[in-house]
Amino acid sequence: MTETADLTATAALAAIRGGRLSAAGLMEACLDRIATREPLIRAFAWLDPAAARRSAAALGQGALTGIPIGIKDVLDTAEMPSQYGSPAWAGHRPRSDAACVAAARAAGAVVIGKTVTTEFATRHPGPTANPANPRHTPGGSSSGSAAGVAAGFFPIAFGTQTAGSIVRPAAFCGVVGFKPTYGTLHRGGMKVMSESLDTIGVMARSVGDCALTMAAVTGQDFGQPEAKMARAPRLALVMGPSSLEAAPETLALMERAAEACRRAGATVTPVTLPAVFEAAYAAHPYVMNMESAEALGWELAHARAQISGVLRERMDWGRAQPRARLIEGRAAFAAARAAFPAAIEGFDAVLCPAAPGEAPEGLGWTGDPAFNTLWTLLHGPCLTVPAGTGPRGLPLGVQVAGRIGDDAAVLAWGEWVRAALA
Amino acid sequence: MTETADLTATAALAAIRGGRLSAAGLMEACLDRIATREPLIRAFAWLDPAAARRSAAALGQGALTGIPIGIKDVLDTAEMPSQYGSPAWAGHRPRSDAACVAAARAAGAVVIGKTVTTEFATRHPGPTANPANPRHTPGGSSSGSAAGVAAGFFPIAFGTQTAGSIVRPAAFCGVVGFKPTYGTLHRGGMKVMSESLDTIGVMARSVGDCALTMAAVTGQDFGQPEAKMARAPRLALVMGPSSLEAAPETLALMERAAEACRRAGATVTPVTLPAVFEAAYAAHPYVMNMESAEALGWELAHARAQISGVLRERMDWGRAQPRARLIEGRAAFAAARAAFPAAIEGFDAVLCPAAPGEAPEGLGWTGDPAFNTLWTLLHGPCLTVPAGTGPRGLPLGVQVAGRIGDDAAVLAWGEWVRAALA
Repeated sequence: MTETADLTATAALAAIRGGRLSAAGLMEACLDRIATREPLIRAFAWLDPAAARRSAAALGQGALTGIPIGIKDVLDTAEMPSQYGSPAWAGHRPRSDAACVAAARAAGAVVIGKTVTTEFATRHPGPTANPANPRHTPGGSSSGSAAGVAAGFFPIAFGTQTAGSIVRPAAFCGVVGFKPTYGTLHRGGMKVMSESLDTIGVMARSVGDCALTMAAVTGQDFGQPEAKMARAPRLALVMGPSSLEAAPETLALMERAAEACRRAGATVTPVTLPAVFEAAYAAHPYVMNMESAEALGWELAHARAQISGVLRERMDWGRAQPRARLIEGRAAFAAARAAFPAAIEGFDAVLCPAAPGEAPEGLGWTGDPAFNTLWTLLHGPCLTVPAGTGPRGLPLGVQVAGRIGDDAAVLAWGEWVRAALA
Repeated sequence: MTETADLTATAALAAIRGGRLSAAGLMEACLDRIATREPLIRAFAWLDPAAARRSAAALGQGALTGIPIGIKDVLDTAEMPSQYGSPAWAGHRPRSDAACVAAARAAGAVVIGKTVTTEFATRHPGPTANPANPRHTPGGSSSGSAAGVAAGFFPIAFGTQTAGSIVRPAAFCGVVGFKPTYGTLHRGGMKVMSESLDTIGVMARSVGDCALTMAAVTGQDFGQPEAKMARAPRLALVMGPSSLEAAPETLALMERAAEACRRAGATVTPVTLPAVFEAAYAAHPYVMNMESAEALGWELAHARAQISGVLRERMDWGRAQPRARLIEGRAAFAAARAAFPAAIEGFDAVLCPAAPGEAPEGLGWTGDPAFNTLWTLLHGPCLTVPAGTGPRGLPLGVQVAGRIGDDAAVLAWGEWVRAALA
């Protein structure tokens, strides 16, 4: 039987509504698990168990009533520090909640704490370890949100993605990660780095929980991904411009996934994207780093010594590029976005790797977003679902992506793929 | 001879570089003017003359060295309160500068103070009066930035536009207002309301100063709008979906402007936009208010009594709309954006009204953005230039708009139109 701390939000809500569990009891189960495992996992940037208990007792009403949620620490919270993974922001206490945090509270979710982000959601890692094997990175930048969902600290969490910061850590930790269509969740109160790319999304233990959470915080219909589909999907198998980055376990996984989907009735057709997608992929570092360097204008002028060497170097590189690179990069993104519907015409969704392979060893590097940046810049929804383990026994994920606005379809076909692989 | 406080930034910089003026002397001239007129105009949300003098003395180096700049109070400043025009944010002191403020400081500009914004840059007005006639509104939401440039308080200022909040107040106050292509200035550290619409821009006393300021804070080339053009423009005269809102003085102005441009060698061709633009125009209130209601999630939950009645009503209306309206609205915007290049094919720029007429009497209403929302949602650059006065002797402006990325062309043709009308 699943322990209370490992329940999905959907199962916990059913138990609460059925009188078999209370919000306080769920919070206690999470805090018990945290007491045991947090010293090793280090998923929290800030946690106050007494405050979490008080929040669980002061129940709001809504679709997420009583569900603990982890908040990535690039999102402001009124009652907790918001430090953006940077010593330049140590002890910062915003006056208000970020828009998405306010929406989660309005839906009855209980903010349990702030989760570790890499420095400003970029490269320099935080202290978080992978629950599947603490000698390995959980991925980043939404490190604490992914690890915390995997470790039983909270059933759902907010993450953000600029390159691969939701999908990659979710895959590495063996949970579900969903980046919705760009712009779905308002970024007010987020420490935005790249305006063209940054997208808020969710991590959870099931695809259904992603749909539930997204619907609760937006009022939008994200479908019932666990409902039986009337037919099998037509999937485009896309290795994309980074195909050479795939480790052997990923090549084997994609073969296994394609085979399993075919056996379950899907068509799975390899698709090579035209050159416009390569160009957009190549432009990603320019747009990301040039926009991020603008975002950090104050920090670079007034807190330069508190910025990591790797970030200073990237920001200086971004500032040294001619402005035309940014304009050309945004144009390359727009061209790829415009070409995407035709590139996958006749397909329900894209099947693609979520990461190059298993989580790298060590906590110094959160891994390569090579299989994520294209889907981020295309602005459509993308989802990673757990897909077994690799040669070292670490979780693997497989990614399903779609057109702008096809969020419910990506969730539904993602769940279908997960079930076919299980 | 122009008084020092009324110099353009370009003229002031030339005087400083030529040794005829110092940054401290320029600041003193501005502070003298402020001492005389601010009690009546009330352009500042925050001003500390001693701090402004210290900033002017601690000169940075750059394209704007020593130029005082007014900062609309929806943009964060590290050393000054940032109150967003709302009692819910009274006394708020951000830790950092907004990205655009950091960029202005890095270019050597001297932040003189915070300028009055309407409540969260929406309807509820601040106390600012129109320098041309203090019984009339200066327009909004960038009320203090427009009035301060007109009154000789600072030569340049940042404004922001969601509906018509740069172009309309600039026209009402008789100054130049420039909203660049959406996304040109990073919104980090801005109190963003509508993510799909909010755009940071500048107000100044000349088109050249707009180009100078934009280039200085972005590193992008905005051209030399005051250089002689090799030919006259082909202008599309567009009254747009709000044509019936034009007051008689505006109809007369557009005839006069078209005639003056033709006399100076331009072709001016009336163009009726197809229905896709009407649909986008009609969707603007849905997208703006639904996104703004998300942005104010924390305020609506925790500071509801401090929100004005008119804003509460709009936000409640926004929250009551079905989510599909937002998605449809964004799709309508995207369709209009896609159709725009073809709609003005063969033209260099659009000539259109900047506002329905002169600034309305009274300070309770900042006027109607009916002639601004279409250009904001199209994401291209738009500019208002002074164009004489109306029947009550108040300033009128005429607007020049263009395609996404045509910023330098809009500035250049806008200056051409201004000169033709002068």
